[in-house]
Order: sequence, then C-alpha cells, then structure tokens
Amino acid sequence: MYNFEYKNPVKIIFGKDKISKVSNEIPEGAKVLLTYGGGSIKRTGVYEQVINALDNVSLVEFGGIEANPHYETCMQAVKVVKAEKIDFLLAVGGGSVLDATKFIACAALYENGDPWDFMAKPGEVRVEKALPLGAILTLPATGSEMNGNSVITRVSIQEKKAFGSPLVMPQFSILDPQCVFTLPNKQVANGIVDAFIHVFEQYLTFEVNSPLQDRWAEGILSTLIEEGPKVLADRNDYESAANFMWSATVALNGMIAVGVPQDWATHLIGHELTAYHGIDHARTLAIVLPGMMHIKRDNKKDKILQYGERIWGIATGSDDERIDATIAKTVEFFESVGIPTKLRDYDVPTETITKITDRFEKSGEKIGEKADIDFAEVGAILEHAL
Amino acid sequence: MYNFEYKNPVKIIFGKDKISKVSNEIPEGAKVLLTYGGGSIKRTGVYEQVINALDNVSLVEFGGIEANPHYETCMQAVKVVKAEKIDFLLAVGGGSVLDATKFIACAALYENGDPWDFMAKPGEVRVEKALPLGAILTLPATGSEMNGNSVITRVSIQEKKAFGSPLVMPQFSILDPQCVFTLPNKQVANGIVDAFIHVFEQYLTFEVNSPLQDRWAEGILSTLIEEGPKVLADRNDYESAANFMWSATVALNGMIAVGVPQDWATHLIGHELTAYHGIDHARTLAIVLPGMMHIKRDNKKDKILQYGERIWGIATGSDDERIDATIAKTVEFFESVGIPTKLRDYDVPTETITKITDRFEKSGEKIGEKADIDFAEVGAILEHAL
Repeated sequence: MYNFEYKNPVKIIFGKDKISKVSNEIPEGAKVLLTYGGGSIKRTGVYEQVINALDNVSLVEFGGIEANPHYETCMQAVKVVKAEKIDFLLAVGGGSVLDATKFIACAALYENGDPWDFMAKPGEVRVEKALPLGAILTLPATGSEMNGNSVITRVSIQEKKAFGSPLVMPQFSILDPQCVFTLPNKQVANGIVDAFIHVFEQYLTFEVNSPLQDRWAEGILSTLIEEGPKVLADRNDYESAANFMWSATVALNGMIAVGVPQDWATHLIGHELTAYHGIDHARTLAIVLPGMMHIKRDNKKDKILQYGERIWGIATGSDDERIDATIAKTVEFFESVGIPTKLRDYDVPTETITKITDRFEKSGEKIGEKADIDFAEVGAILEHAL
Repeated sequence: MYNFEYKNPVKIIFGKDKISKVSNEIPEGAKVLLTYGGGSIKRTGVYEQVINALDNVSLVEFGGIEANPHYETCMQAVKVVKAEKIDFLLAVGGGSVLDATKFIACAALYENGDPWDFMAKPGEVRVEKALPLGAILTLPATGSEMNGNSVITRVSIQEKKAFGSPLVMPQFSILDPQCVFTLPNKQVANGIVDAFIHVFEQYLTFEVNSPLQDRWAEGILSTLIEEGPKVLADRNDYESAANFMWSATVALNGMIAVGVPQDWATHLIGHELTAYHGIDHARTLAIVLPGMMHIKRDNKKDKILQYGERIWGIATGSDDERIDATIAKTVEFFESVGIPTKLRDYDVPTETITKITDRFEKSGEKIGEKADIDFAEVGAILEHAL
C-alpha cells in the first residue's frame, strides 16, 4: 500500500424527506445563492421543497447551468455573487450544478487573474479561498457531492478541464433517493455507468498490495450491476434507488482511492469527446473504456483478470482469452443499461480522433496510471471504438 | 436502507515514517499534553521519534494510562491539563490511550458536575466542548483513531462504560504500519479479533436492504482473515501490517454503519467480563460472540447464512446446520490466532455469570439490535461459553 492522507469532512444527510431539513444546515443570517440547472427541479417538485424549506432565508437564484457546465455561465454567476454580496452557495441538482457551484465558490474570491487558471495552470495557481457551499443532490452519478473535484468546460476554446481543492468540498450534501423516481432512463443509465467507471479509474490499475481497497471497489461494482437494472425496471423502488445513490457517492469520495494507484486516462480522453461533440460524460467513458482495457492489457493484466473472475466469474482460458471475455462482459453491461459504446453510435467522425491525437501530440502530455499513454496510444484506444 | 447522517472529519496520515511529520499538525503555539500508556512507546522507539519531531513544541507528559483506561487515572490527567493550561492533547498509543485522551479532552472543560456523567447519564449529560486532540496510533485494533467513541472503566464501582461525541474525534491520526513490527503476538491477535467483532456488531444483524454496506463489511472480514495470520507469521511484513492496520481503522470509522441496524450487545456483555476480571477487551468479545450467534440465530438468521456462505463457503445443509458450522468456523478462526473463547480459559467462575445477570436484572436494561436481550438471555449467552 502507498502512503496516503485522507480527510473528508462533508456531512452527508441521506434519506427520505431530508430536503425539508436544509435550513438547519445554512449558516444563520447567510445570504444564499441557489444554483440549479435547466429547470428539471421545477418539474419534479424539488425546487418547491427547497423554497418552502428556506422561507426564512435571504435567497438569490441562479438557474440555467448546463450539463458539462460552462466556464462562461459560471462567470455570470460570479458577477451575481459579487453584486448581491452572497455568502453561501446552495447547489440543487446533479454533478454539473455541483461542479459549477464549486468553481463559482472559488472564482468569486479570486483576485489575481482569470479563474480558468485553476484548471489551466494546476501546478501554479491553487485555490486559496472559497465561499462555503452545500448541495442537494438530485441525480446520482458523479460523486461530486462528497469530494472537492470539479470539471468545467470553456466553450470558446473547446476545452474541458478539472480542478480540485478541499476548500470546495460541500459543507453538507443532502441525498434523498426519492429524487431518482423522476429521472429519465437516460440519466439513470448515465449515472450507473459514470459511477462504475469512477471505480474503474481507481481500481483497474497495475497491482499494489491493497486487498481491502480492491474488495470495496468490487463491492461498489457488484452493487451497481445488481441494483442499477432494478432502478431502470422500477423507478419507484426506493431501496434500489437508495443503494444506487449511495454507491455513486462512495465511488468517488476517496475511500477506495487511498493507498493505491489511479488512472483517469479514460476520463481525460472522454472529456475530449464531450468538448468536441457534447456527448454525455458517462457515455464518453463507456466509449473509451473498452479500448483502454484492450490497449493497456499488459499494465492492467492482473487486475483485469481479478475483476473478470470476481465480478463476472470468468476463470478459464488463457490470460488473453479471459481479458477479451472480461472486456466483452463489461461492454455488454453498458449496452444492457442502454449506453452504446461505439463512436458511430454517436455520429462521431473519424476526423475527431485525429483532432484529439493532434491535441495530445502538440501538448506532449502523457496520461494514465504510468503516464505512458501518448498521442499514438490515445489514437489506438479511440480506434478500438470505431 | 435507513436514513442516516455521516460526517467524519478526521485527517488520516497513513504510511511509512509519517510520525516525523507530527509537528505540522499541531496548532502553532499550542501547549501540548502528550498522553501515553505503560511505557512500551519508550521501548519501541516511538516515544523518541515523537519527542524529536516536537522539539520546538511546548510539551507536558502524562504517561501510565492503563489498558481499559481508568476514570481515576484520567481525572489525574485532567488536573494536569488545568494546572499546566494545556490547549492540545496528543495521544500516542493504542485504543486505551486514545479513549482516555478523548475523555480527558472533554472532562477538562466540564464544569457542571462529575464528568463520569457522560457515561452514566448519556441521554441527559452531553459533551458540549472539548480540547482538540490528535493521535499517533501504535496498535491497530479499536478504530478509536477515526471516530468519536471512548470506553472508560471506573474501578471503584467495577463499571466499564462508553460515551461518544463528534467533539472528541481526533483532528488527525497518524498511522505508521511499522508500529506493528514491535507488537507482541498477543496484541496483534487482540487487534485482529477486536476489529473483526467491530464489523460483526454492524453487520451481523437482522436484514435490511443494504448490499453495499454488507459487501464492505465482508471485505474487511476477508482481509482480516487473510492478512491477520500473515502479520502473526512475519512481524516485519510491511504490506500485511498496513492492510491489517487500515482494516482495523475502517472497521469502526462509521462507513459500514450507515443506514443499517447495529447490535453492540457482545460489547456490552464483554465489558462486564473486563470490569470483573480485567480480561483483554478483544478476548471478552471472542468469549461472548459465539453464544450471541447461537442464542440470536433467529433474529440474525439470514445474515449468519450470508456470512457463512460468502466468508467461509458454507452453503449446504439445513439452516441450523449451516449456522452451527458458521459459528464453529468463527470460533476456529479466533482460536487459530491464539484467542481462546471459553470462560474456563480465563479462569472465570460460574458465579460471575450470576453477578452479571443480576446487574442486568436490577437495571432492567435490554440490549442488542432489537433491544430484546434481557438478563436471562445474557445468562444463556454466557453459559454457552462455559
């Protein structure tokens, strides 16, 4: 096991009808900016629950945060924060609203230049202060409710980039599984696959001696495989919704990441597909992952074999046969919940691969758990999805 | 899954040679009380590492905290805290030193009576303030390094009781697996069994729908079964020591407890055995647990069967046969690491059972996940260990 540090002070408030308690968590006298997305919270009734719960709180609203939230939108919110002298942010929505709110929280207090530098110059420019924020999660998927990570897209330059800081961890996150009841199939499927591949980025790496972390990662995968389809089959099944929701949270709250290598190359390549074609984040991961497993089958060999055996019961054949069968099972699972895995399913032309490899070639960036995936391997991984 | 709240802000600093970094974690200018036990930290070199790391810190020492720490000893430390105007406590040791330090931290600031009331009147008297504390863990076992729980023994009245408060969670805990290298077999074995039964108290209950929490609990059990004997066989095996140490921490950091029932009757009965005979905490649990599984086989039936099948591969026979085989396997595991499970192994006379049942009869207290274990069942559970 590697040395590690772990600290996660996010207060999770989980369960039925918990949204009505949100005012207990807001600092007294705070002026609150309520951030949300395209308005689904108004259709589902969550907006009304929040407004009723906060009837004694001074509230300003900022709606319209899009999926894969835009830097440009966030900077509009920063203006509102400054003009209205906001001192607490309350994100109500899914991972995009949460990620945007994290960025707004630190961008609003950054005076030394363009806050895009948090993403563009991660070694150089660090978050040093941020407004406090809380969250009401309406969509299990990204795990953003229990970590300090955020991914923002700058539309003008077609770039999608991440930053992270403990200062933008939510003070609290309220998770009511009943929010799952109103989600369309597409968002449930995205959430299942997103959480699944979050686990993969922390689990499907070269071997270190970390049997507990392995088992916890496998526990999340098994639960997603078991409970995800139940949620798709019956949207009012509270227990399955709860198990799905909590699995997505712990998939990225850092617990399975301690002391082990991490990869994240699937995410980095996936972000490019979103930047060029606006494909849902989870779907880009489902496109990239099979190629990643195929091309990096040597780096990841022992762990792919372990995953194949423990999760899918694949225990016979040569190593390569087992790896191929394991990749096929993984693809089959994604397709079974309604997530296609080929570029053609999303009308992505072959030229996009060239654009992406060109960008990696130009920057010279190498990615993956061993920082050994160069532009040529990025190309090979994407070609696997043709 | 039940509704739940979870917040655990303890900063874990895990790994080789991390003790030397402790001064980074102490608040600037703080006057620190260094608490420790019977002096083993001086033999193992940990004391010297800590003193060297803190050479610029104003330090007062309080050693001599015993196993199953005494209220009476803690109150001596409280006097030191007040006389020396201490503003930070640093516990260096195992669970007993940590538990004592948590009690000292809140007892020192309690002005409304006898701080024993935190244990004696848990509904009535609550911790409202506490000095900040940090920990350097030398003995994986109790999980005290990542929670707000503490168990204290009042020798004068032969009572051992628990209290808990988020205010006594350590600000940080440093875990260097190399500390395991110098532990005697007895303490390693105690730690394995202690952590194992912590998992049981949160896992081996009646069924709720919580497949993820089940799998995480089972992941800890499997890891303890696999890594524990390796630690016993080779005390310098860093990787096994690290896996054991982290398993003991997460066994009681609250992660596997969220949204599920808990039991703790094995602990409550075990505490009585320690109070009367000074038996090591973990050993009392190994004495009580088999009888608990036997007597509560109806309440816990589905979970015992699941545990037997997933952990020990017991999948054939009638339910009762499977339960008996599962209890036998559990006992065999405890005995294999050197922990006897019968009262006679500890020279406990039959009269002790009467003393304990008398105490439960007098208080009228009922314990366990369903609060249905009365004095008569306590007696039956202990008789199983004759």
